[in-house]
Amino acid sequence: MQLVTLTTDWGRSDHYVGAVKAKLYSTINDCQVIDISHDIKKFDLMEGAFIVRNACLNFPKNTIHIIDVDCSESKKKKHQHAVIKYNDQFFICTDNGMPSIIFEGLSPIKVIGITESYQESSYYTFSAFDLFCKVAALISYETNIEELGYEITELVKKNVLTPIIYPDSILCTVFHVDGYGNVFLNITIGEFMKWKENKKFVIEVESNKIVSISHSYDDVKVNDPLLTISSSGYLELAINRSNASELLGLKVGTPLAITIDPKESQK
Amino acid sequence: MQLVTLTTDWGRSDHYVGAVKAKLYSTINDCQVIDISHDIKKFDLMEGAFIVRNACLNFPKNTIHIIDVDCSESKKKKHQHAVIKYNDQFFICTDNGMPSIIFEGLSPIKVIGITESYQESSYYTFSAFDLFCKVAALISYETNIEELGYEITELVKKNVLTPIIYPDSILCTVFHVDGYGNVFLNITIGEFMKWKENKKFVIEVESNKIVSISHSYDDVKVNDPLLTISSSGYLELAINRSNASELLGLKVGTPLAITIDPKESQK
Amino acid sequence: MQLVTLTTDWGRSDHYVGAVKAKLYSTINDCQVIDISHDIKKFDLMEGAFIVRNACLNFPKNTIHIIDVDCSESKKKKHQHAVIKYNDQFFICTDNGMPSIIFEGLSPIKVIGITESYQESSYYTFSAFDLFCKVAALISYETNIEELGYEITELVKKNVLTPIIYPDSILCTVFHVDGYGNVFLNITIGEFMKWKENKKFVIEVESNKIVSISHSYDDVKVNDPLLTISSSGYLELAINRSNASELLGLKVGTPLAITIDPKESQK
Repeated sequence: MQLVTLTTDWGRSDHYVGAVKAKLYSTINDCQVIDISHDIKKFDLMEGAFIVRNACLNFPKNTIHIIDVDCSESKKKKHQHAVIKYNDQFFICTDNGMPSIIFEGLSPIKVIGITESYQESSYYTFSAFDLFCKVAALISYETNIEELGYEITELVKKNVLTPIIYPDSILCTVFHVDGYGNVFLNITIGEFMKWKENKKFVIEVESNKIVSISHSYDDVKVNDPLLTISSSGYLELAINRSNASELLGLKVGTPLAITIDPKESQK
Repeated sequence: MQLVTLTTDWGRSDHYVGAVKAKLYSTINDCQVIDISHDIKKFDLMEGAFIVRNACLNFPKNTIHIIDVDCSESKKKKHQHAVIKYNDQFFICTDNGMPSIIFEGLSPIKVIGITESYQESSYYTFSAFDLFCKVAALISYETNIEELGYEITELVKKNVLTPIIYPDSILCTVFHVDGYGNVFLNITIGEFMKWKENKKFVIEVESNKIVSISHSYDDVKVNDPLLTISSSGYLELAINRSNASELLGLKVGTPLAITIDPKESQK
Repeated sequence: MQLVTLTTDWGRSDHYVGAVKAKLYSTINDCQVIDISHDIKKFDLMEGAFIVRNACLNFPKNTIHIIDVDCSESKKKKHQHAVIKYNDQFFICTDNGMPSIIFEGLSPIKVIGITESYQESSYYTFSAFDLFCKVAALISYETNIEELGYEITELVKKNVLTPIIYPDSILCTVFHVDGYGNVFLNITIGEFMKWKENKKFVIEVESNKIVSISHSYDDVKVNDPLLTISSSGYLELAINRSNASELLGLKVGTPLAITIDPKESQK
């Protein structure tokens, strides 16, 4: 059975989801289309990349992923649509900066720019329908992706805020807020532990001091803030049973400092 | 594998979607239920018809479509539930005016009014659960649809605003606004080109003049309005990177004139 | 084919749904994951239980149901995760009070508390990902659920308001409001008929008197209130074509009296 996933900013009250499913089921034999999300904020490449990176990379071998967030293009400002092979899966998307975030630090990836001859319409407003479905069907029937175009050696780069790491502090940034109001920081547990070594740290936010990593939300009292590690590996600020983003005033883009406990520094 | 799609106005926070899926999976062997949309505006036959027409007609042969938008009925005001066969697919729905819009201009269609004996409850508040699922299972097991009732030769007609076409102008109407704020007009590219021939046209809206058809949103500058052709074949007004419906004050039902450029008329 | 359903409070704009689907598809061969709802109100055990009870109990034999509403836990306040076997199906959930509502009055059920050794992470913030998926895969490969832990003989009990039944009146409570504003009362048609016998009843709400059970919404005039029986068997107050919850001021928790018609009482 051919698995095809959809990650888009189309919303769910239009015909777009259904039209693409119709095309996939009618061109790919023995197919199963899986909704990842259609509720990515419209045109939000960062959020789309976060969802794909944390939801899609570990599907079974040969899964095809269709990703459509801001893939419109013009004759003047040509976006290159691409198939990216990673981890034995295929990601059909647009080289608009989003793939550079999705696959940051991952290898090996192979990127093929799709030649325009596969486009099924002279309008370029719905590439998932007019191009991506056809490419998905071709891959499903074992077309070698190299036949679909030419190899791209460098993805269009979208700058992502990375944490600034000093010996005694890290300046990081909120880069995702989930539906519970949990706040994801742009630093992984690996980077954090390497920096911290065996020293004590402190995060000060809105007159709260957080000095340890909790292993569950209920490790602190109801309405108390905590730091934990999300299943995706990032540091995550939360409030037990409440909305950390709202109560602590932390939104996507808000900077936040993590420091080595001054008493440690004086050692 | 039997494909069954669902297009409804149930929303997604209730048990309705799950209850119908349970019944379908437990009565149809080797079944796959596909969500088209559960977010049709409640009781909005026009919007429901638009979604079905543009999302459902091209699924594979033998696909069964369950459509539930305002299919409640009473002993006094009896709605006829129906199975409609079109394009080798089966549409289980209610002859409440919506099918007349979905299948407008399409043929051949065969319409069978379902006899009440298939209803599994003495309550008529959830026909998809109490009737449509059973009919889907029967069709899946190759029941000839003519055994399910009697043939209907004329669908209940719901009046739809059609564009009024004069030699030098068209008076059309907004009939759908998508989640991006793109505005769909009730005229197809075919009708439009036949009217326009090789003359120049102009659409004036909120002090903007649109005089050409764009092939992509990015053909105009960010925040500029444009006219394009939607993948469903209708004329579509949009604003590059913004919400045409809000910024141009165009809602479902708003009339809009397309005129032949006066300079052309004077030729 | 292994069916797995998901009922959660995760919402649809995060990576959680996709991450769990990735894990299920990559560990269970020939699998189909079915969305029941991801829009349960966050932490709302009552609403989650209502959805599961009315949507999930009648799937085919061997279906696995993953239920995640408020299943976080701590070292101090340990929630027991459990597999519940009922009606030849498997429900992977948390013994946090919700299962006691879901399975109220149903038997036989077998409850196995899952031993912690199956947890795949030292963080306890996303049990569906770190534990439930693995348990689903084990059940799918025919692991006897008794090998997963130890039998629990009594579920954690969450108190649910039950109707108070007097000879001449019932004091019941609104316990669910659906997306149409239909109001579900916590009394079943069976309990109601047993109490009422062949006497007349009356419900007074906002100067309306309802004295009969309607079999469809359209049995009364548009904008008139009515009482019907939901497909799930509960008494349901509705307004034909409108929102009973808003117009009659009935929310979850609102008490409501049903009385025997006084004229009957005087007989």
